[in-house]
Amino acid sequence: MIKASIVGATGYAGAELVRLLLQREDVKIVGYGSKSFAGESYSGIFRSMYKYADDVCENDNVSELSKKADIIFTATPQGFLAENINDEVLANAKVIDLSADFRIKDVDVYEKWYKLEHKSKGLIKEAVYGLPELYREEIKKARLVANPGCYPTCSILSLQPLLKHKLIDEKSIIIDAKSGISGAGRSGKVDNLFCEVNENMKAYGIGSHRHTPEIEAQLSKAAGEDIVISFTPHLVPMMRGILVTAYASLKAGTTEEDIKNAYESEYANEKFIRLLRKNENAETRFVKGSNFVDIGYVIDNRTNRIVVTGAIDNLIKGAAGQAIQNMNLMFGIDEECGLKSLPMSI
Amino acid sequence: MIKASIVGATGYAGAELVRLLLQREDVKIVGYGSKSFAGESYSGIFRSMYKYADDVCENDNVSELSKKADIIFTATPQGFLAENINDEVLANAKVIDLSADFRIKDVDVYEKWYKLEHKSKGLIKEAVYGLPELYREEIKKARLVANPGCYPTCSILSLQPLLKHKLIDEKSIIIDAKSGISGAGRSGKVDNLFCEVNENMKAYGIGSHRHTPEIEAQLSKAAGEDIVISFTPHLVPMMRGILVTAYASLKAGTTEEDIKNAYESEYANEKFIRLLRKNENAETRFVKGSNFVDIGYVIDNRTNRIVVTGAIDNLIKGAAGQAIQNMNLMFGIDEECGLKSLPMSI
Amino acid sequence: MIKASIVGATGYAGAELVRLLLQREDVKIVGYGSKSFAGESYSGIFRSMYKYADDVCENDNVSELSKKADIIFTATPQGFLAENINDEVLANAKVIDLSADFRIKDVDVYEKWYKLEHKSKGLIKEAVYGLPELYREEIKKARLVANPGCYPTCSILSLQPLLKHKLIDEKSIIIDAKSGISGAGRSGKVDNLFCEVNENMKAYGIGSHRHTPEIEAQLSKAAGEDIVISFTPHLVPMMRGILVTAYASLKAGTTEEDIKNAYESEYANEKFIRLLRKNENAETRFVKGSNFVDIGYVIDNRTNRIVVTGAIDNLIKGAAGQAIQNMNLMFGIDEECGLKSLPMSI
Amino acid sequence: MIKASIVGATGYAGAELVRLLLQREDVKIVGYGSKSFAGESYSGIFRSMYKYADDVCENDNVSELSKKADIIFTATPQGFLAENINDEVLANAKVIDLSADFRIKDVDVYEKWYKLEHKSKGLIKEAVYGLPELYREEIKKARLVANPGCYPTCSILSLQPLLKHKLIDEKSIIIDAKSGISGAGRSGKVDNLFCEVNENMKAYGIGSHRHTPEIEAQLSKAAGEDIVISFTPHLVPMMRGILVTAYASLKAGTTEEDIKNAYESEYANEKFIRLLRKNENAETRFVKGSNFVDIGYVIDNRTNRIVVTGAIDNLIKGAAGQAIQNMNLMFGIDEECGLKSLPMSI
Repeated sequence: MIKASIVGATGYAGAELVRLLLQREDVKIVGYGSKSFAGESYSGIFRSMYKYADDVCENDNVSELSKKADIIFTATPQGFLAENINDEVLANAKVIDLSADFRIKDVDVYEKWYKLEHKSKGLIKEAVYGLPELYREEIKKARLVANPGCYPTCSILSLQPLLKHKLIDEKSIIIDAKSGISGAGRSGKVDNLFCEVNENMKAYGIGSHRHTPEIEAQLSKAAGEDIVISFTPHLVPMMRGILVTAYASLKAGTTEEDIKNAYESEYANEKFIRLLRKNENAETRFVKGSNFVDIGYVIDNRTNRIVVTGAIDNLIKGAAGQAIQNMNLMFGIDEECGLKSLPMSI
Repeated sequence: MIKASIVGATGYAGAELVRLLLQREDVKIVGYGSKSFAGESYSGIFRSMYKYADDVCENDNVSELSKKADIIFTATPQGFLAENINDEVLANAKVIDLSADFRIKDVDVYEKWYKLEHKSKGLIKEAVYGLPELYREEIKKARLVANPGCYPTCSILSLQPLLKHKLIDEKSIIIDAKSGISGAGRSGKVDNLFCEVNENMKAYGIGSHRHTPEIEAQLSKAAGEDIVISFTPHLVPMMRGILVTAYASLKAGTTEEDIKNAYESEYANEKFIRLLRKNENAETRFVKGSNFVDIGYVIDNRTNRIVVTGAIDNLIKGAAGQAIQNMNLMFGIDEECGLKSLPMSI
Repeated sequence: MIKASIVGATGYAGAELVRLLLQREDVKIVGYGSKSFAGESYSGIFRSMYKYADDVCENDNVSELSKKADIIFTATPQGFLAENINDEVLANAKVIDLSADFRIKDVDVYEKWYKLEHKSKGLIKEAVYGLPELYREEIKKARLVANPGCYPTCSILSLQPLLKHKLIDEKSIIIDAKSGISGAGRSGKVDNLFCEVNENMKAYGIGSHRHTPEIEAQLSKAAGEDIVISFTPHLVPMMRGILVTAYASLKAGTTEEDIKNAYESEYANEKFIRLLRKNENAETRFVKGSNFVDIGYVIDNRTNRIVVTGAIDNLIKGAAGQAIQNMNLMFGIDEECGLKSLPMSI
Repeated sequence: MIKASIVGATGYAGAELVRLLLQREDVKIVGYGSKSFAGESYSGIFRSMYKYADDVCENDNVSELSKKADIIFTATPQGFLAENINDEVLANAKVIDLSADFRIKDVDVYEKWYKLEHKSKGLIKEAVYGLPELYREEIKKARLVANPGCYPTCSILSLQPLLKHKLIDEKSIIIDAKSGISGAGRSGKVDNLFCEVNENMKAYGIGSHRHTPEIEAQLSKAAGEDIVISFTPHLVPMMRGILVTAYASLKAGTTEEDIKNAYESEYANEKFIRLLRKNENAETRFVKGSNFVDIGYVIDNRTNRIVVTGAIDNLIKGAAGQAIQNMNLMFGIDEECGLKSLPMSI
């Protein structure tokens, strides 16, 4: 039985971890850490979990929570884990961090985009970027996994085969991403009220969203050269789901066959990636509630561009599901364990 | 391995059966019956099931579909099963009918409310009403189960303990029910378009909805006398969920303790019924994606009435989940098998 | 030119007043009062008003705001106006209060349900209940109008003809009301986040909602005797709209003709009330964006009950529109002025 | 009094024309043409218009409808007007066509993208493209106006100043557009059901949407050279609104000041175009219910691209509102008449 603690259990990503882990027979949640709700019954906050998670929340003390756990998930604000992690914690438990603290290898880049001083610089090198489709072997051996951001997961998986196989112009990449509102978290901000969000569509953080350097770092690695992208996130009046619409110019000589082969050679054995049939584009509903990544594309001969669509459930493959996929790898369990739910499209 | 055929697999209830059954290792779907989509790939229609249900749909021939199956689910229009069932079908396979054909024992009542001639009157008596919390033992032995309607499931379970224990005035019952739109089915009607449904709330079928006699029949049985109710269904701009708000006058001398005892004595051992904590009312999100029934109540001393709130996911406990619960009972399997998903409240 | 100040201009009701008043050529908004946003540009908060309301918000000083205005609208928390109104204010400007402070004549009832001490008891008697269909003549002469609550507006107008004409059993009234989320206001509460509200339906305040005594007071007046009701409000995942589904037992001898006559005699000349055609029920979308009240009913002979459906836009006829209707009356202007927008049903 | 007939009055664009025109005192609707609902009361179909449009619909005979009208609006399927227009019709009434039949000057391009033979080629030259901000003087004198598509209106107005002023690389334009569902029309298609659309985001018609050549033609005119664009429309789970996110590379030497000047010089006097403040991006809610076009932009120095956001209400500035703006011009009326509603952002 794997004992798991969750720090930040009362945010949306934390709650999704709780929901998914409670359905496993080989994992037991031993600590619900919450800064805001310490002392309250978990199921009093998330009544959907009534009779399944009636435990009382503790505060968010990483050190204490690590002592009784085999693994800690931290779904906490940027900077929190870097400030609270140390060798003792890592000696107690494996750590999967759902925040951005250990995603970016270049600490200057991190500090510039996040406007934070990194308090555990010494651990950045050791941390493994938790995208199993790219770093599976490293994850298996990791003590500290940096679970990717939601936009990066979808963006990187949608585009990296094209860069790795040198099929697109490296300077031409534009990622227009659309997200459901759960990505904005569970704090009581006016901007996220139903009446502010519903029947509205907007872009935000144009040219400045903090997921940009994370995407660029991974795409650069795939390309073998520095990649700079335009990345524009949008908010859509729905709860879950990210849709990425990515544009790139094809290199001279790239054929449809090349593209098909690139995706298939990268993903043929990936259980969670579904390469869509010809003429099918990704839709968020078709992955909702699952750990799937759906990828489709259209080649536009008029403009010599490829338009790739990728979809994930931001709370699952974009957060809690991917964290569990990483946990499975770290504990030598079947990678799909606990992640077999099929999409609940309506 | 249980072999299952689904007739009407391309409607919303049928698709929910497919989604839930595909996740089981002890059941195999051997036939996808569909009047409208025969000859098409199932996952071409429901792309969420891509790679998991790529089989081609057959037509809706009950007799043929029964031959290769141990069980047939019929999620078909009213009258269809009554017209297509016969002894040969029942000799081939057990049948769980998600339509109303065998729910009402009094054929005159059925024909009056459904404005249809019943074509298999001889089987009505044998059919078991598939509400496991009330008919568990009969279901275990049944060949033909009439899976309850969505509104009736929620209404009956919310109110029957009060009637059985003689705590409320039998003439005072008013059920104001609210449903998500999936209950209206998957046909291309203007009334169910996004732009007609969204940002709107309406009542329909006031005093004339066909689920009324089904509710009355079961409540009458619980009460031991004829019950006539006011039942008003409403459509809410959401996909899933039924909320029942039921009103009744308390009999003289009824105490809060009596009410608590009535619910607990009826439901203490029911895995899928959650009696909410004091001052909690049922909300549809807290059961969404699960087979749960949440029940809460408030006693209003000013009016001497009880107000009961009950919530289910109309596609699960109100349709496909309940059908699977019935299947489990009919095949001697753990009643919760395949129904352990916790609610996905966002 | 009527000079108007709005206190609480940055809440949803306040913003609706701004939107509606800006479209009038005979009214000028001279003061935007806001406790939270004093010093900020109004159109920086409500960007929909950009180029039309770029003025800077003042604080919420009623006395100062009254000095430059002919009329003050207060869309403020309960207790605020009672604490800030005085003879000087009333000498400066007419006052229309969108809070509950002056709606209930019995101060004990107010203090009990609102759990507040009333700080201007001496003005309660003078205040006129601002439901023009019932108090038109009094409103014309009033200095202080108590604009009705959203649920009460819809509930009272839907039911009062039946009580006034003695057609229903006074003890049998049950009002099951459903509201869009804008009624919950614009503060950053977790409960009102998109992800908490969307795809959910719930009851709240069962038997204890503060609009109950306001409805009872007006229905009692119509009936000529004390009326006690069951009132259950619900939240629906939509922005605007209230739907009331009201149930009552018919008195012996009441005919459909009696009911039709009662509604027509009360409302035949009311421009904002639309008595629906036979077999039509009220739907919120058909009044959205307008000052209309739509009323329909069904007589259920099986139960001897009438089921009345009433719909309003909670921000218009339930708040800002009704306030403007009152202002028109108080200033001797055509009652429909500025309120002629037809419903924007999609 | 201007007498207006509407052909296709029972679609969403037609209904929006009805709603807006009914609120005018100088226009009278004399004919409601509808292929599907001829013989039915208009307000029986759109109950929001009850008591305001109770007339009976006629069939869609353009010739007959023109005889009694000063102006005909055709909100009809592609090809319909081209097949039904003739000199007699144009002698009877001015025509504003909300379909695509006369939007594209190059008939080969029209026939290729629309896969239709054009049945009134002789009138294409005369027709004026009804975008008042670009063709105001021509519209004033026109007999036949081709009202622009919704995506083109928003795309062209967002980008044309940059092309006209030679500030962006003509080959680099990518338009990622997002639309509410009302753009898909009011026919009973499964794809547009609430349960198929809600909680979903998808691209469609990638590289092949029929609004592409319309956008390209107008942008080419602004640029003075042939422009080819990538255009990707998406469907968003909301009823109204189009958001365009457009990307282009800046020409060497282009400064922020140049961009500001370009927009201001083109639009300073346009009443319906609002150039947003620095750092503000367009959001659909802020134009909902109005005829406004909101335009914002961000210059991304990292990529040397400009990202322009533009928003309109697709049924108003993208259809009925723009048609009325054109009508006002054609009849010498104040261009804003009947279009002064401020946005209803919630």
